[in-house]
Amino acid sequence: MACELGERKIIEIILECLDVMPSMPIPFGDDASAVEIGNRRLAVIKTDMLVGKTDVPPGMTMRQAARKAVVMNISDLASKGAKPVAVLSSIGLPRGIREDDIRMIGLGLNEGAREYGAYVVGGDTNEASDVVISCSALGFCKSSLLMKRSGARPGDAVAVTGPFGKTAAGLKILLEKLSAPAAIRDPLVEAVLMPQARLREGLALANSRAVTSSIDSSDGLAWSLYELSKASGVGFLIEEVPTSAEVERFAEDHNLDLVELSLYGGEEYELVVTVKPELWGKAKESVEKTSGCLMKIGKVTEREEVLVVTPEGARAIEARGWEHFKT
Amino acid sequence: MACELGERKIIEIILECLDVMPSMPIPFGDDASAVEIGNRRLAVIKTDMLVGKTDVPPGMTMRQAARKAVVMNISDLASKGAKPVAVLSSIGLPRGIREDDIRMIGLGLNEGAREYGAYVVGGDTNEASDVVISCSALGFCKSSLLMKRSGARPGDAVAVTGPFGKTAAGLKILLEKLSAPAAIRDPLVEAVLMPQARLREGLALANSRAVTSSIDSSDGLAWSLYELSKASGVGFLIEEVPTSAEVERFAEDHNLDLVELSLYGGEEYELVVTVKPELWGKAKESVEKTSGCLMKIGKVTEREEVLVVTPEGARAIEARGWEHFKT
Repeated sequence: MACELGERKIIEIILECLDVMPSMPIPFGDDASAVEIGNRRLAVIKTDMLVGKTDVPPGMTMRQAARKAVVMNISDLASKGAKPVAVLSSIGLPRGIREDDIRMIGLGLNEGAREYGAYVVGGDTNEASDVVISCSALGFCKSSLLMKRSGARPGDAVAVTGPFGKTAAGLKILLEKLSAPAAIRDPLVEAVLMPQARLREGLALANSRAVTSSIDSSDGLAWSLYELSKASGVGFLIEEVPTSAEVERFAEDHNLDLVELSLYGGEEYELVVTVKPELWGKAKESVEKTSGCLMKIGKVTEREEVLVVTPEGARAIEARGWEHFKT
Repeated sequence: MACELGERKIIEIILECLDVMPSMPIPFGDDASAVEIGNRRLAVIKTDMLVGKTDVPPGMTMRQAARKAVVMNISDLASKGAKPVAVLSSIGLPRGIREDDIRMIGLGLNEGAREYGAYVVGGDTNEASDVVISCSALGFCKSSLLMKRSGARPGDAVAVTGPFGKTAAGLKILLEKLSAPAAIRDPLVEAVLMPQARLREGLALANSRAVTSSIDSSDGLAWSLYELSKASGVGFLIEEVPTSAEVERFAEDHNLDLVELSLYGGEEYELVVTVKPELWGKAKESVEKTSGCLMKIGKVTEREEVLVVTPEGARAIEARGWEHFKT
């Protein structure tokens, strides 16, 4: 049964059934898929579904849920360096949903697309047991600027576009009702309810030609590192787990493990990239020009393992993260 | 509530929330959406969701359901004259679904795409209360060959790529357990379980440059005619309701209204097109070269009304068809 198999095994079973398109510009298992459209350009496409029961925490409005359903697709395009242009949305609605909630879904879809310069251009609606919002995004990039999960080389810098752990902490506030002072609570909850895709950062990084591999972190930082490691055939030594003052304070107040919150959360949308060491300055500058940030957190190593530096020495990061059906 | 509003009102509410992309090659409400990609070509995209509870009749396997989820998207691309290249599939699965059913979904998705020359290139899986298969298709066409719902002109011929009523009859066999001899039952049930997108026909019609408007008939023939009528600002006089020997026999055996079965069913995937009268021969020949057929069923008229010729004279076809939430 699905709940015994887990999401990753389910994906494996389905992939075994599929004929593989010849010369796919992006292989299966990457953040998005692509098709050549001539003139050395790619159409990059992505689909991702939000299910009310499992993906909408208490406190998230229908408008925020619909916006997020778009943003999570934009994030995948961003991680490949593709500029989103059009969004489609297939919606399942229970019979009893109110007119006002339907309108909020429409507004949220529009916001999610417009914030990133794209438009919702079509979709369909269906009757379903639960609210289901399945979005697809279409974007474009130059073939030569595409950032894949594969390509990291030993000696490259590992970097992220922002701190981790806010979403995991925010979910503890929303799901487990943990308390926090407003100045801490607000940014943590905001990270869950209004996630931001790092599109400007992704496009700037692609244009810098400094990036050797890239992934978004929707299954958590640890998992993203393992995915990059597997796709590139390299390892990572993480020297600093990137976290924020709010998460540190929240962990302290509730006696939570800061590294646990930052490494093994999910539903985060920072980009995790590897950068050619000689182009580090250029990459960082290009992201900062978009008002974003690029933080170096470690380096790429030869051996296919993911380690983190601790006061007691380097130890392995666990290969776990968000997984549907299992968690 | 959704069940009081009905699908078409729900779509209207959502559309009111959306900013409209400037110079959309295909307007909202057509069968698919499009984006210009340069070189006078369009990327044509479509999403459509299949929900187990409402869209999978008894007797349909998971493999057939998944195949259909792809085919219904291919059909929309076919109606615009776009060649499908890539399919994405976002899947919601209940926790208790068996491994074998998951494999069947993978096989069905692959079949649906490969039968029409496309490939499944990506997707995602999620936990949901019911089986939900949301597919998106990406295809391409020359901008000049795009067939929209608008464009029909008085005097054009109205034509379809095959007979109607098989699906409505097949659903009566599957849902209401009506009986039929095997020679009748098999093709009627087959129409429901293994629908065919008229892709070869759609591409041939687009290339013939003879078509002035086009739609697929997934909400039934009557509804499709009303949609073309509204989009083109014209009317139709249907001289012959296209049906098949099996449907005639089935209607006779069960004392059912043949016109009802043929006009107001749904989940049919024939194309309904209008053709320039001087290019009728060319259009018909181009479809027949693909082993398809093109049947003239009436003509386009000035006044925005949809009439059918009966022994008692012309009478209005009702503007009804399949609608989620209401039916």
